[in-house]
Amino acid sequence: MQKKKIGIIGATGYTGSELVRILANHPHVEITVITSETYAGKKFSDVHSYLKGHVDFTLSSVEDLKPEVLDLVFLALPHGVSMDFVKKFQETPLKIIDLSGDFRLSDSSIYETWYQKKHSHSEGFKEAVFGSPELFSDRIKKARLIANPGCYPTSAILALAPLLTHKLIETAPIIVDSKSGVTGAGVKPKETTHFSNVHDNFKAYGLKNHRHTIEIEEIADKIAGSKTTIQFTPHLLPVDRGILTTVYARPLQQINEETVQNYYKEFYQNAPFVHITDRPPSIKDVRASNHCAIYATYDPRTNLIVAVSVIDNLVKGAAGQAIQNMNILFGWEETTGLNQLPIHP
Amino acid sequence: MQKKKIGIIGATGYTGSELVRILANHPHVEITVITSETYAGKKFSDVHSYLKGHVDFTLSSVEDLKPEVLDLVFLALPHGVSMDFVKKFQETPLKIIDLSGDFRLSDSSIYETWYQKKHSHSEGFKEAVFGSPELFSDRIKKARLIANPGCYPTSAILALAPLLTHKLIETAPIIVDSKSGVTGAGVKPKETTHFSNVHDNFKAYGLKNHRHTIEIEEIADKIAGSKTTIQFTPHLLPVDRGILTTVYARPLQQINEETVQNYYKEFYQNAPFVHITDRPPSIKDVRASNHCAIYATYDPRTNLIVAVSVIDNLVKGAAGQAIQNMNILFGWEETTGLNQLPIHP
Amino acid sequence: MQKKKIGIIGATGYTGSELVRILANHPHVEITVITSETYAGKKFSDVHSYLKGHVDFTLSSVEDLKPEVLDLVFLALPHGVSMDFVKKFQETPLKIIDLSGDFRLSDSSIYETWYQKKHSHSEGFKEAVFGSPELFSDRIKKARLIANPGCYPTSAILALAPLLTHKLIETAPIIVDSKSGVTGAGVKPKETTHFSNVHDNFKAYGLKNHRHTIEIEEIADKIAGSKTTIQFTPHLLPVDRGILTTVYARPLQQINEETVQNYYKEFYQNAPFVHITDRPPSIKDVRASNHCAIYATYDPRTNLIVAVSVIDNLVKGAAGQAIQNMNILFGWEETTGLNQLPIHP
Amino acid sequence: MQKKKIGIIGATGYTGSELVRILANHPHVEITVITSETYAGKKFSDVHSYLKGHVDFTLSSVEDLKPEVLDLVFLALPHGVSMDFVKKFQETPLKIIDLSGDFRLSDSSIYETWYQKKHSHSEGFKEAVFGSPELFSDRIKKARLIANPGCYPTSAILALAPLLTHKLIETAPIIVDSKSGVTGAGVKPKETTHFSNVHDNFKAYGLKNHRHTIEIEEIADKIAGSKTTIQFTPHLLPVDRGILTTVYARPLQQINEETVQNYYKEFYQNAPFVHITDRPPSIKDVRASNHCAIYATYDPRTNLIVAVSVIDNLVKGAAGQAIQNMNILFGWEETTGLNQLPIHP
Repeated sequence: MQKKKIGIIGATGYTGSELVRILANHPHVEITVITSETYAGKKFSDVHSYLKGHVDFTLSSVEDLKPEVLDLVFLALPHGVSMDFVKKFQETPLKIIDLSGDFRLSDSSIYETWYQKKHSHSEGFKEAVFGSPELFSDRIKKARLIANPGCYPTSAILALAPLLTHKLIETAPIIVDSKSGVTGAGVKPKETTHFSNVHDNFKAYGLKNHRHTIEIEEIADKIAGSKTTIQFTPHLLPVDRGILTTVYARPLQQINEETVQNYYKEFYQNAPFVHITDRPPSIKDVRASNHCAIYATYDPRTNLIVAVSVIDNLVKGAAGQAIQNMNILFGWEETTGLNQLPIHP
Repeated sequence: MQKKKIGIIGATGYTGSELVRILANHPHVEITVITSETYAGKKFSDVHSYLKGHVDFTLSSVEDLKPEVLDLVFLALPHGVSMDFVKKFQETPLKIIDLSGDFRLSDSSIYETWYQKKHSHSEGFKEAVFGSPELFSDRIKKARLIANPGCYPTSAILALAPLLTHKLIETAPIIVDSKSGVTGAGVKPKETTHFSNVHDNFKAYGLKNHRHTIEIEEIADKIAGSKTTIQFTPHLLPVDRGILTTVYARPLQQINEETVQNYYKEFYQNAPFVHITDRPPSIKDVRASNHCAIYATYDPRTNLIVAVSVIDNLVKGAAGQAIQNMNILFGWEETTGLNQLPIHP
Repeated sequence: MQKKKIGIIGATGYTGSELVRILANHPHVEITVITSETYAGKKFSDVHSYLKGHVDFTLSSVEDLKPEVLDLVFLALPHGVSMDFVKKFQETPLKIIDLSGDFRLSDSSIYETWYQKKHSHSEGFKEAVFGSPELFSDRIKKARLIANPGCYPTSAILALAPLLTHKLIETAPIIVDSKSGVTGAGVKPKETTHFSNVHDNFKAYGLKNHRHTIEIEEIADKIAGSKTTIQFTPHLLPVDRGILTTVYARPLQQINEETVQNYYKEFYQNAPFVHITDRPPSIKDVRASNHCAIYATYDPRTNLIVAVSVIDNLVKGAAGQAIQNMNILFGWEETTGLNQLPIHP
Repeated sequence: MQKKKIGIIGATGYTGSELVRILANHPHVEITVITSETYAGKKFSDVHSYLKGHVDFTLSSVEDLKPEVLDLVFLALPHGVSMDFVKKFQETPLKIIDLSGDFRLSDSSIYETWYQKKHSHSEGFKEAVFGSPELFSDRIKKARLIANPGCYPTSAILALAPLLTHKLIETAPIIVDSKSGVTGAGVKPKETTHFSNVHDNFKAYGLKNHRHTIEIEEIADKIAGSKTTIQFTPHLLPVDRGILTTVYARPLQQINEETVQNYYKEFYQNAPFVHITDRPPSIKDVRASNHCAIYATYDPRTNLIVAVSVIDNLVKGAAGQAIQNMNILFGWEETTGLNQLPIHP
């Protein structure tokens, strides 16, 4: 099989280096170009020095990128920047997987409300497919533009999907209490990522207005087929990678623990990366892998369903899921190049 | 003023060493005896080597303890062990502050259900006062036996008390999502506290059956004056000290953010250790101090009240609160010997 | 090519699970048997729950192992246990790579002095080849029994080999100051690996008598062709994986920084896993990979050579190097199955 | 006793907040003014939000500081900034304890070589006393300007002083291998203090040219009474606080372990904060205290003396030692206000 030619737009962030790490051993693709406006002309290993001698690819400017020689590009860019590249490539047949938040929501007005930023390419929303492989693989297969899900939404949606699909729960409000590692905040030093502000510490942040709230809510709406309301509270863990999401929901009918667990097992029986566990999982159980582990239970004392999901925010929550989407798009086995086992411990 | 003579029963655990650390600079007390059955005859600094040259107190057996020469003992013992000492001292006038869970619940049958253990001194429950100084100082003043609250319950109750007191929320279910540092699991090495099982990791545990569930619920009942139901989910943080509790509750009437915050400010206006903050606090904000910080808000989009509290589980969640209770008991200023500022960073 | 049949003796430790993680994607081998006396009959994923659904291999007792159907076994056992299996298999043609310390030294009397333990199979020492691929690949190719190097010795020897080979330094004493992650201490909970004894902490240990001292010294002797004396000080880092070793040595002749660096570059020019860097590396630069990075310099102010090396103690310091040795033994490309890039961050 | 009036110049850094934390419970002083050019007019607790309700002191500009109403100022400023304040106050009787590196060396030319920065007040060097209480208390008593030692130099000098004083070791080179927590790098976010660059990581840095090299060397010269040469290698630990220094030196005469240890015990017999231990200490043994623990040994196999010292870089390595110097200066008991026990764990 001839290898597909892949471009990565954006080389300095964690999603860029994680795409390179995983794609390096993907059997069906070849990274043809990596762009960086800041480091064009330098090597990828000048930016990520630990790869010296291993990934010495020379970076180019996006100005020199020729869409016609590529099969697909990953946009590993911050939100607010990706949209311009999607616009730039709109007349080309180039497949795009955008890892930013720019095309995940339903339209530009909702985007502008939650991101507090003008959107430059509102037509993109119509074309974009939300890249959740466990839910929308039919649409992903035919997509040209895939909006790769956010890290928190991936963990929340996977924990909620069986409940919403089967209309088992009250949908307003649903409580989503999430805890994330620091890499979710990006590669750039700032006060919130300063070592001594994070290490041996823990805090809640972004209450009531985190952008992933609306992303979770809109996808939950689609799955439920009705309006949902999500109370989303993110917290910052003193770890590099990993999200654990604890979900609380009220059942609409009489239910028990076994029934709840069976809904989950059945829902994910063909999902190669999602595992239903019989004990609450930990984030290290999935570290550096594309796995998601979910534990779901029912508490008769309180009449609540509680579900706990874990993912690696940089893999299943970003680069790994993007590659999973690419596999689906190109008609390959979903797990191709994604069979790395977790790094444990 | 003549110093009160204090005994500490139990020298090896974290609560024992934390009591010694704080009491070392308390102006009105003198540690007269520290017992350890394992290390009797050795020095306290043989068990806690970092105190060599600083706390070289010789440990004795509890057999040699003379209740009549002491004013008060702290029981720094595991649950299931404390009860026997309370029983042993029952005919003496000795004041007791028990840091274990043995007398926190309402009676022995509830204890036996949740602790899966026979209780040897059920009469103790009648006498015991739950040592939450912000709620029960009148009873603490006159107590002979104080059941010092658990660490999770302290963080949960302080976050819930203003809401329950003013009957602002639905009480069944209330969601209490807590995250604790590892010292809460004790000084003894085991699989769950093995470094590589905790470091860079995070997990939920004890869902539906953690013993602190019933402790929170019973105190919540008392404050609310009616039956409550608590969904309590503890999680294990890769940090030494600190608990952050996120509480979710549905208001019973129309409310707004400002009103919620005012209820909290007013409720704690005379509580020297509790501070209502205008942003979510972090556990390092209170580390190694007796402080508790609480942020409370209301989300009109979801119609939920969310409150976040932080404490140091070994100080406000154990030894510090015990000393605060002692201060009240002896009629001293509540803050005596507890004015240490947080260690930050 | 027909796949080689591989056995792993010992399933519960970190080296066992790390062998499985890496071999899972090795193109030329098939894991045929994994033994565990404790868990025989259970699945590998019952012991390592994060692999449920991914590695559900059933464990067997070593009693049921048939050497004649295997091409090679890895002994992932504690020292003092491995020796009995080497003895057991001595009459079979089975290739053995022993990850314990049982056959790394020159004879049983030295072993018994440093390990304070009787050796049951002293004939093994004659046959055993020290598995340092960068130094002894010729002997490894023809070996039947490979003593896979210790983690500290790997980091120290790689940092010292160019200096010793070219007789550039005084060899008594050489200072080896090493810092290791906690996984080096094994999977079993004990006081020294209890989370709160390690986290946010750092200490030296094993001064003057750590077993790896003699292992480093004996190999240094071989490389130098003369007697060396090593002052080895291990320290415990609050991290999972990684060793950083800082070496100090006095040059025997006039030298400068450039010359020193050139010796290193030339020495390792054909070593695919060793990279000479122009700045001191960090342990995360090689995490979860088989890479070793070395920075070497000369300080004219003090007339000392200083070299800093980093490895992942579980990969290049254990399972990865064992697989590298297997590749050499079977005549495969040295890097086969070992091309994983570091997990960063 | 009337309280001394104290000023703190510089409110935002870790040394400033640590001075406040410790002085808050000092019986003989009163903080009269804290200055911050950035935050003048705001409260100290606006900068350090965790102190809200506890330290609500209003910050002023240094322009408004009246030297005549103060007894002593601490300069908690970066190097290169302190010198201007020392100059500014030179005609006043104000006592100054400077926590920066501006007056620790012997003269401005050496300063300018190692700090790569012009010095604006070279006369200050003559007046400045190096504030190492265990070595120079006689001079500290009479000082007007105290140059408070650097954190690394404190740990190194305390480990070396008994050896140098008694001329027990070769002085060129002496190897000082140090490992420090991240707070030593300051409060300001930068790439080297970004959480994911430090957490679960470890590296060497500043080889051959770290500024503390010359500070250690000059003080070692003074103690030894002859020229020394120090090979100083700092490393960055993934912890908040703490320095562990491992020192290697060759004895000049025949010696044994017991003799070495006796030299240390005798040397520090009247030093209330320095403890000679019989096992290597860990940094948590002294965390948040002014303690220093030292383990010294001799290895007959290599004929080397190895000493390991630990301090908290923000306390004994900065604010605590500054307060110890103030106590000496004012003729108070050296331990006044410094009797906090370590926070452990």
